[in-house]
This record gives sequence, C-alpha cells and structure tokens, in this order.
Amino acid sequence: MSDMQSLVDSITQQQDQYLNRLFKLLRIPSVSTDPAFSQDVYKAGKWVADQFQEMGLSVQMVKTKSHPIVLAQTPTVEGAPTVLVYGHYDVQPADPLEQWISPPFEPTVRDGNIYARGATDDKGQMLTHVFSTEAWMKHRGGVPINIKFLIEGEEECGSTALSQFLKGDYNDQIGCTSEEKLACDVVVISDSSQFGAGIPAITYGLRGIVAFELTVVGPKQDLHSGTFGGAVANPVNALMRVMASFQDDVGKITIDGFYDDVQEMEPVEREQWKQLPFSEAEFMDKIGITETFGEPGYSTIERRWSRPTLDINGISGGYQGEGGKTIVPSKAVAKFTCRLVPNQDPAKIAKSIQAHVAARISTAFKWNLHIGHGAPGVVVPLDSPFMSAASTAIEQAFGKTPVLIRAGGSIPIVSNFKQKLGVDTLLLGWGQNDDNTHSPNEKFSVDDFQKGIIASAYLWQAISEINK
Amino acid sequence: MSDMQSLVDSITQQQDQYLNRLFKLLRIPSVSTDPAFSQDVYKAGKWVADQFQEMGLSVQMVKTKSHPIVLAQTPTVEGAPTVLVYGHYDVQPADPLEQWISPPFEPTVRDGNIYARGATDDKGQMLTHVFSTEAWMKHRGGVPINIKFLIEGEEECGSTALSQFLKGDYNDQIGCTSEEKLACDVVVISDSSQFGAGIPAITYGLRGIVAFELTVVGPKQDLHSGTFGGAVANPVNALMRVMASFQDDVGKITIDGFYDDVQEMEPVEREQWKQLPFSEAEFMDKIGITETFGEPGYSTIERRWSRPTLDINGISGGYQGEGGKTIVPSKAVAKFTCRLVPNQDPAKIAKSIQAHVAARISTAFKWNLHIGHGAPGVVVPLDSPFMSAASTAIEQAFGKTPVLIRAGGSIPIVSNFKQKLGVDTLLLGWGQNDDNTHSPNEKFSVDDFQKGIIASAYLWQAISEINK
Repeated sequence: MSDMQSLVDSITQQQDQYLNRLFKLLRIPSVSTDPAFSQDVYKAGKWVADQFQEMGLSVQMVKTKSHPIVLAQTPTVEGAPTVLVYGHYDVQPADPLEQWISPPFEPTVRDGNIYARGATDDKGQMLTHVFSTEAWMKHRGGVPINIKFLIEGEEECGSTALSQFLKGDYNDQIGCTSEEKLACDVVVISDSSQFGAGIPAITYGLRGIVAFELTVVGPKQDLHSGTFGGAVANPVNALMRVMASFQDDVGKITIDGFYDDVQEMEPVEREQWKQLPFSEAEFMDKIGITETFGEPGYSTIERRWSRPTLDINGISGGYQGEGGKTIVPSKAVAKFTCRLVPNQDPAKIAKSIQAHVAARISTAFKWNLHIGHGAPGVVVPLDSPFMSAASTAIEQAFGKTPVLIRAGGSIPIVSNFKQKLGVDTLLLGWGQNDDNTHSPNEKFSVDDFQKGIIASAYLWQAISEINK
Repeated sequence: MSDMQSLVDSITQQQDQYLNRLFKLLRIPSVSTDPAFSQDVYKAGKWVADQFQEMGLSVQMVKTKSHPIVLAQTPTVEGAPTVLVYGHYDVQPADPLEQWISPPFEPTVRDGNIYARGATDDKGQMLTHVFSTEAWMKHRGGVPINIKFLIEGEEECGSTALSQFLKGDYNDQIGCTSEEKLACDVVVISDSSQFGAGIPAITYGLRGIVAFELTVVGPKQDLHSGTFGGAVANPVNALMRVMASFQDDVGKITIDGFYDDVQEMEPVEREQWKQLPFSEAEFMDKIGITETFGEPGYSTIERRWSRPTLDINGISGGYQGEGGKTIVPSKAVAKFTCRLVPNQDPAKIAKSIQAHVAARISTAFKWNLHIGHGAPGVVVPLDSPFMSAASTAIEQAFGKTPVLIRAGGSIPIVSNFKQKLGVDTLLLGWGQNDDNTHSPNEKFSVDDFQKGIIASAYLWQAISEINK
C-alpha cells in the first residue's frame, strides 16, 4: 500500500470522528451579522483555534475591533511551496426559522446530507483542509509543504476586520507586516460549489464588481403635478432617461469605452464550456423565466461567466404606496452594479460612468453619483502547476477529472490576495448548487465532506511535487 | 340708492354675523379622511342643511354609504336661469398639529385673516354663496334666478358618494334622476384662488388627467446579480427603458398620437397670459429650483395651463434600503399620470400608452398596465354670457376686472357636470395662492370673504339679466 493510500484509508476510518467535530462547530450559532450572537461568533473562532493548537500548529487569534482572525501555520518545511488556506467560521442568519425542517443549529443527517446553517458555507468546507492537515501530521509526521491558515469571522458581514488586517492595522499584534505573515505561493479557498452532482469543478475565474448609487434631486419638496407638471423638470423622469441610456435593447452596454479592456474568452474555454452539461430549460424553470436574455453572440454560460454587466439593483422615488398620488417627486435614487471581467479596472469603469451620467443629466437638477466598493475580475492561468496539482488531487479523491469553470459572482478577497500577495487563488468548491447557501435547510453532502478531506490531503501531496 | 347698493350695504352691515356663523362651522372638525371624525362630518353637513332650512329653501340631506349630500333649492322663478352651486363641508386633516400657530378648529383672526382648517377650503368660500342667497331672500324677498345647492362631505376623500349619486344610486331618495334634480344652466364653484393678492380671477380652464401603474415582472424572485446577471432580463432596466421612451430630452412627449387632439391656446389667451404679473424668479425660488423646464416654444404659465404632460409620480423596485444588495430584482413598478388638455380623450390617450408600452417590453417579462381614473380637460368658452356675468359681478365687488386664467390641476367634478348635465362651470376662486390649503395655518382673508359674498350677490343679479 502506498503512503498516500494508507493516509486516505485512515481519513476514511475517521469519518465519524470528523463528522462529530463538524457538528460541534455547527452547533455554535456564529451569526456575524447580528450583534446578539457576538459571544457565539467568538466561541466558534476559539473552537477553530483550539483545533490548530491540538494539531501542534503555531496559532494566533488576532484581536480586531469585532471578531478575531484565526491564523495558524504548520512547521516550516524549507524549500517547499507555501499554501494559504482561507476560510470563515461565521455564518448567515438562520431566518426564516419556521422553514427549517430540522433546527439550524442542531446538525442532522438526512439522505446523506448534513443539514445545518454553515454546513457548506463555510464550516464544513473549511474544515476539510483542517482535517486533511491534521491527518498528514498525525499519520505522516507532518505535511510535505508549508500551510498557513487564515480563518476569519466576518465574511458574511463585509470582512471589515480582514481588510484592516491586510492594510496593516494589526501588524503590531503579529510582529511583522500582513504581507510577510501571509506570504505564500498560492491561496486555496473551498467556499463554493461543484458544477453539478458528481461533476467536481475548479473555479478558475470570477467576475469583479463596482457599485453605484445615483441620486437626482429636483424641487425641494414633492409638488402638485397639476399645478407644476410640464414646467418643472421631474427627477424620476430624468433618472429613467439616464438609467435607460446605459444599455441598448438587446442588453449591450453603451457606455463609452465600457468594453475596451475586456479580456475575451480563450477559444479553448468556449469549447470546454460548451461541453458542460447545462440545460437552458432547467435554468429558466428554476428561476421562473420563459426566455433568457443578454448580449447577442454569447451563450447563457458565457454571459454569466465572461461578460460584464450593468444591472439596476433597486430604484425608488416619489409615491410608492397604494393607489396614486399626483406629484412631481423631489428626488429619485437608483442603485446599480456592474459585474466586471478580467482586465477591466473598476476605477476606470467608474470614471466612464461618471462621465456618461454628467453628460446626460440636465443642469435643472442637483445630482450625486456615489461610487461604492469595487473589485476587479480574476482568472487563474489554466496552465499553472497549481491548477494541475488541484486537478490531479480532485480526480484522485472524486474519481473524475474536475471541469474547469468560472463563476459570475465576485469574491473580493481573491483580487485582494492577488494585489497584496501577488498570488493566484484555487477555488475548490466541494458544495452543490442546491445546498441552500444563505437559505433555510442549508446542507452539505456527507460524501462530499469526506471526499473534500481526501482531495485536500492529495492536494498537499501534489503541491509538494511541483518543481521537484 | 339702487336696489343692489342697498343689498350690498346690508351685507356689509352683517359682516360680524357672517363671520360668527363661519366660525361655528369651522369649529366642527369635519375631517372626512379619518373615520374618527365621522360624527363631526355629519354635524357639519347638518349645520349647512339647517342654514338652508332657516333661509326658507327646500332642503334634503341625501343619505349615502358614508357622508350625506346636502341639496337645497330656492323657490322657483319661472323662465329665469338656474345656477347649481357646488361646494363641500368636509376638510383635510389638521396634521401636523404642532405647526399651527392657533388651534386648527378654533378660528382666530390675525392680520385680517381667518386662521382655521377649512377657512378657505371650502367652508369660507362655499358660505359666500349661501350668505349672498340669504341676503337676497331676506332683503329682496327672493333671488331673481333659480339656485340649487349641492354641498358634499367627501371632497377631500374622493367624492365616492357624489359619484354614486350622479350615477343614479340614490334616485329613489330624491324621487327623480340626479340629472333632473341638478338640471341647470351653469355651475358655480368657489374652491380655488385669485391670481394673486388684489388680482381677482376667473378660472375658465382645467387640465384633465389619466393615471397609470405599470408593473414589470421578471424572475420569480430576486436573483444573485453575480450568478445570473447578464443572462436574465432585469425588470428594472426594462421599466426604465419604457418610461424613458415616453419623452425626449426637452420634455416633448413621443407617444404616437399624443398631441393629435390637443386644442391649442387661442392667440388671445396667450396675449392675456403674457400680461399677467408673473415672476419666473419667485416661482423658482418658492419650489427650490434653478431653472424651469418643458416643451420648447411655451412659457412657464403656458406649460402649466395649456400643455399636456407625462410625469412619473413614483417608482419602486428591488432593494431600496441602506447600502447595496447585488440582485437582479424580480419586479419593478412605476406610477405615472398624464395631465390632459381640452379635446384630449383620456381613454384614447390610455390606448396609445398601452400600445406604446406593448411595443417596447420584451416578451421576456410579464407586465401589466393598470389604467386608473381619468377626466378630460375643460375650458369654458370665454364668450359665454355667464362668463360676462361673472366678470361684471367680480368687478363690482372687488373693484377690478378679473383676469382670465386656467389652472394646471384637474377637478374631475367639473368634467363630470359637463358630461352629466351638459353645462359649463364658473370657477370663481376667492382665496389666495398662499392660503395654506391642505397645510398648517390655513387661512382666508376676512376681506376676500366679505367681497366674495358681495360678488356672489351681484352674480345672481347679473345672471338674471342674461337674455333679457
């Protein structure tokens, strides 16, 4: 029996023990968005730190203005690559409680799935890397590479403390810069999904984002639309005109220079995505639409993963109650976000939008464009040795070569790591699309949990073999 | 001394008595929008009916599903014209109470003004016609024409009972049709304002209205804008496009056929309006804008009185709270109204808008256009003998020829009377623009109240001389 097979066997034998420990963490209601659970969030962070301590890692709980950041590090292996594992120990609120079949903080196994808030996002997925590292240390005397863990407690509420940490606000606690502390060759995050049941995936690309809020103000108060209508510029009418001018009828964005820097898909990506088992009918049925929509010349998957967007997220202005009120409203507000693709610069896009708006709002109005958070899109080179290592490890654990996918969402920490540490991130999601993340009855497959631990154990091995 | 001068003198001598009786009515908090005041609304109606009874008119309080309609009629004068006086005895709520200098239902005279809720809208103005009729009956033995009074108690909350009355729902109570009961040659309403202080006016035109609510529905629930954005049609984006398509940059409406039936101003009207003392700077300052806006080729007054509009009154959709939420919203709603001018048909305009919307919303959405209340615009012919009579009467009472103005608002009852009874309405406003109608510290000038009674007395005389 190979050394790896023996390690995998021992992981398999420990399944109940791993499950029990995951259950312990799941029982702690570490809801970071609600101050009422503040003690529990701390308790969950402490529990994670304790695991690292018992495994013999060097551990530090960085005190922040809110919840602690748990840092841990395996004993140094000179000359070996360094991996930074990022995860989070906080969870979303469990509301609406009445829709849970079993209580959200009393983990229950049904039909091969662990049901609990945080099961897949991210306690279960995060622990796969903790347990694989523990297995290596216990059964092989240590991991063959350097592994650093960065497990935060505010992922579900904006990661403020982590941003401060990366900016250096807590350097005095760690005795060096955060860049030095987190220096690594690659980041690993398991906080997403496989492509489908039985179709493991590596997510090698994410879209970026830039958020806006446009406020247009006309008269100082709502006016009678009979007495004043026709002679006073209506800020809602004006806002509509601006918002409508961002796109053409088929969904192509008409802002000057918007597509200039877009990095087009590689032909090989298009080809691979075409091979993915994707049913347009199922997609539409699930969200209750009768036709898809978007930029001509792109498939639904391509539009979601590789094309930039401008979506209005919310709009308000004037009278919104029952019936009508005949006014010229004083004010109107639109919130909107652009999803960006690699090579588009959020700041440059924001500038284009600012200019576009300025050119189109009449001087009859006061207006303000608030530019919110931004993060660029990312793609990890498909030919990187870390991608190959991840693919090999996943195939060994799941029995199938993972498909290479992108995601339409944004994980700002990924571009943050790229900017701060100069490294790429491997997004190795062990979850499923229907795991009810952020919804009632969140679940995580017992089998995927187990395979995740094994894949992680194989990954440490595969990474250790790079450059050998 | 002429008979009229003697009548006017007696009215002048009665000033305190008229004021005291107005105060009695003002002390009754007849707030029709709030069921808590239901008894008081009835009490006010009864008080008005009692006045008519004491004057020797035939009176009827028509019982309705809510507040009674007071009908009264002077003794028949064969061959003389018949005037229908419309008014209302209900008032708006007094909130915000803390902003009143003296209590809203304790009428107080300061600086020559009566301060109280309902002082000008409409108790004070309505009573001018009651008291002038009383003066004629007392001092001249009767009015020289036929006067019918229709005083309702729900003007501030939609006039539902009056609509039902006009439809014939209460014909059994009056023993004839409502058309027969209200048959007349002209309607007189005093429920508006002079053009300015010392500038009495006759309002001979009103804009009409037609109201809409457009709902656009996309996915069955809000979607993650990262996962779905770019591939799913966004109902807010779509609503913006439709709403923006109604108008061009300078405020001209671009709906097919919208202006087809518009009755243009007469050159004489334009000329008269140019002579009105109107300060663009004061107008802008009062409502807090720095420039006016609207259809090229028209002045601010022309835009407000003689041009149709399309104003969005309210808009909502998606996330409207603090900060942002990255969603593709499921639904968006816009409420909007068109102000119409004479000869535009609300139903025809609604049809054009329906077609405009239908041609512009993608089949990717479910949508609904709700068509609400409509009323056509009205103009009273300037050369009618009733206009001349009113002008003469006002000049005699106020010492100045009234200016002839239109108003931008809509008084649906005016077009209702035109349709049901086939007669025009004289809008003889005794109030001032700054009377704080519907606001705290509503007021009515004691002098305008007195002059209104005298003008009304002269009006009955002038109308009696028509066709002689």
